[in-house]
Amino acid sequence: MTEAETLLIEQAAAKLGPKAVITDTREIEPWVSDWRGRVHGAAPAMLAPASTDEVAEIVRLAAEYRVPLVPQGGNTGMAAGATPPADGSALLLSMRRMNRIRSVSAENRLAVAEAGVILATLHDAAHEVGMRFPLTLGARGSCTLGGLTSTNAGGTQVLKFGTMRSLVAGVEAVLPDGSIHNGLSGLKKDNRGYSLDQLLIGAEGTLGVVTAVALRLVPAIAGRAVAWAGVTDPIKALDLLRFLEARTNVIEGFELLPQDSLDLVLKHIPNTRSPLDGGHAWNVLIEATTSDPDTDIGAELERLLAAALQQGLAGDAVLAANEGQAEAFWKLRDDISEAERTEGQTLAHDISVPVADMPAFILDASAKVEAAFPGVTATGFGHLGDGNIHFHVRAGAHAAPDWYDREGEQITRFVDDLVTAAGGSISAEHGIGQLKRAEFARLASPGRIHALRAIKHALDPLGIMNPGKLVP
Amino acid sequence: MTEAETLLIEQAAAKLGPKAVITDTREIEPWVSDWRGRVHGAAPAMLAPASTDEVAEIVRLAAEYRVPLVPQGGNTGMAAGATPPADGSALLLSMRRMNRIRSVSAENRLAVAEAGVILATLHDAAHEVGMRFPLTLGARGSCTLGGLTSTNAGGTQVLKFGTMRSLVAGVEAVLPDGSIHNGLSGLKKDNRGYSLDQLLIGAEGTLGVVTAVALRLVPAIAGRAVAWAGVTDPIKALDLLRFLEARTNVIEGFELLPQDSLDLVLKHIPNTRSPLDGGHAWNVLIEATTSDPDTDIGAELERLLAAALQQGLAGDAVLAANEGQAEAFWKLRDDISEAERTEGQTLAHDISVPVADMPAFILDASAKVEAAFPGVTATGFGHLGDGNIHFHVRAGAHAAPDWYDREGEQITRFVDDLVTAAGGSISAEHGIGQLKRAEFARLASPGRIHALRAIKHALDPLGIMNPGKLVP
Repeated sequence: MTEAETLLIEQAAAKLGPKAVITDTREIEPWVSDWRGRVHGAAPAMLAPASTDEVAEIVRLAAEYRVPLVPQGGNTGMAAGATPPADGSALLLSMRRMNRIRSVSAENRLAVAEAGVILATLHDAAHEVGMRFPLTLGARGSCTLGGLTSTNAGGTQVLKFGTMRSLVAGVEAVLPDGSIHNGLSGLKKDNRGYSLDQLLIGAEGTLGVVTAVALRLVPAIAGRAVAWAGVTDPIKALDLLRFLEARTNVIEGFELLPQDSLDLVLKHIPNTRSPLDGGHAWNVLIEATTSDPDTDIGAELERLLAAALQQGLAGDAVLAANEGQAEAFWKLRDDISEAERTEGQTLAHDISVPVADMPAFILDASAKVEAAFPGVTATGFGHLGDGNIHFHVRAGAHAAPDWYDREGEQITRFVDDLVTAAGGSISAEHGIGQLKRAEFARLASPGRIHALRAIKHALDPLGIMNPGKLVP
Repeated sequence: MTEAETLLIEQAAAKLGPKAVITDTREIEPWVSDWRGRVHGAAPAMLAPASTDEVAEIVRLAAEYRVPLVPQGGNTGMAAGATPPADGSALLLSMRRMNRIRSVSAENRLAVAEAGVILATLHDAAHEVGMRFPLTLGARGSCTLGGLTSTNAGGTQVLKFGTMRSLVAGVEAVLPDGSIHNGLSGLKKDNRGYSLDQLLIGAEGTLGVVTAVALRLVPAIAGRAVAWAGVTDPIKALDLLRFLEARTNVIEGFELLPQDSLDLVLKHIPNTRSPLDGGHAWNVLIEATTSDPDTDIGAELERLLAAALQQGLAGDAVLAANEGQAEAFWKLRDDISEAERTEGQTLAHDISVPVADMPAFILDASAKVEAAFPGVTATGFGHLGDGNIHFHVRAGAHAAPDWYDREGEQITRFVDDLVTAAGGSISAEHGIGQLKRAEFARLASPGRIHALRAIKHALDPLGIMNPGKLVP
């Protein structure tokens, strides 16, 4: 521990009490590595403020002693954006004690909640007043609202409701100078200069610490229907989505799954079975919801799918008969990554291209990767309607145990080059963090890098906010 | 003309040709004052680039010679944000020659158009492919997409579709260092660092020059219905809106009008008549639309209003019998400002507070203003569902001719203090520009002002982009 860190910790303990300063290494240990165990950091202390004023106090101390802070929520990020540097030169700033839901209003369709509130907790609170916060993702039981905001998280319902950027109505944050930005008023229209709210969304804690957010709510789900369809290729899958979208606004999930990914799930995950008989090269999982109790959503989705089948957009389709089956359909989608890991080494890429270009991109990029790296299997699955898929490259059956470490970087560069040539993004929803920083630096335009550095330096001239993340 | 300006103009003419450099004062004259004639500037030349590369060239010259630029579209702004300084120290940068619609796609629900395209032209282009760009406002025949983006414009359809911030899918801009930011790919998900798009929206040209935008389209209107209802007070008006919103998603306009504003329209604007007999203290104008040709939108709105009348939410209501009557209803709303100007001196405030607080705010603030400034009439009208009204203070019948100039500032400060105390915004949709800069500086938090200045200085260290606007 440096002298500056010691002084900061003493001051923080004196001002905020012992609960706000954790130095027991056993307590800190679970939080210094990313959850996938790929990046290991170190921190001599974890600060755990319980209020916005306490965060401001800590940030002022960090500025005074020039000790950087690494803000952290549920530590479920995919890019190691909340993992401290390995040399112990920064302190963890855990936001988990800031876990109050300040208000939930069905009338205003708005919830105001602190950064440390867990997503599932907010889901429950909205449900209690007959409303719903529509964003959801696998880590809902442990990810926090601050982390979701700072990474502009997406998930499976983006098609209808957008990412966090669309759902955040306001941000409260402590800026690097210790001042408190209060954007929580929930104004629907406000044109008083640059939007600091929008700048903080997706900034990965590099421009300040998000302490609370105002979130838009939508009416609770009165009914949902989940269907599974087999299609010949991703082009037909997108045609099917366009067909549905032209006729209804009830579709809120539309996930693409290649048959070979499904086969791995069926092989490795117990108690799974294929929704459809007979092989379809590609599958789509469709979720439709309504907030109107008088709408028979199952009948509506069935009618639409029947019409789509008649037009040859899908080879077969089946509606989940009940909630249990609906969950089983979703489990097939959610377990792909786990099944792939069980099968062998897998290299994941979270990418996007324009929606209309995605079907051709999946086919083209898969073929190019498999040709350039003989033995691997490349495929894409996920949020087709958002132009965002998880492009996974799996090691061949006889790959060396160190395939991932030896070939991973080269394959990723190859994929990222294809994505960039297609006008796409090498990080559709996971952010840059530490893991994608080198690739971002390699592929972003010099003008963009200059602008990002300038903004970072302008708001955080001392470099105390989440060093080594996002900004190349 | 300074020596630097002369050199820049010579260089620009040499590089871009004579069409891109206008020095004829008669040609420049209409563009150096704001359209309401309240702020008069001067510019020794107007630069008129025809492409993004030409804009970049001009910005590089501006940086080289340290001559500031004032970007301008249709010059229809309400805060003199596109009016050059009076001392001739900056050049006008007219974007009107950049008027190409680059693409319109019904399939992708996206249009890409240059900054100088006039809003009505885009409306027509979207209509031609069976789609619609939903944002609209009074100046639609002359305002440009670049100006709309740079001011995060709102208008009358914000309730359903949001402001420009919600409708812009990407921004192309020339940054102050002459680099081109290209955000036009139309990616639905992209988490590669700070959103420059969002930073440029509403930046009033102070961080760069918007050269083109990608805009979200929605399906064309298949039917619309317009209704007029009389209510006892703004609280009942909001209750009526909540009632409708809980039952339908077809409402896209909901405008509040006090009876005394309506009376002025009926008095001063020829060929107007009241939609309802009998006095209602307040009125609402309701627009419902559908993109589904099978929906009888008139019948649906009539049914909903009948139910609302039965619950006592409105005193009376009438549906426009045809398009002509629908237009006549809207004209009553659109002519309020003109009628008020005909009646006498009027001080306008474009303000917002949280939606739920707006009804009480209108009543409370009107009473306080009338008590503090005896003889004046204060009232609010406009976008109740967005929490954004135009709060107008009218001079009394015997006010001195210089009432506006003598008392305006004091009254505005009084109103702005009330708005700020209510957690609202002193500029809901018009921006800060020149006209609201002093009030913004007076009322914004020091932390916010510091952050805005830091961002401005970081991206525009030479101060060449729209000097004297927005940033206090």
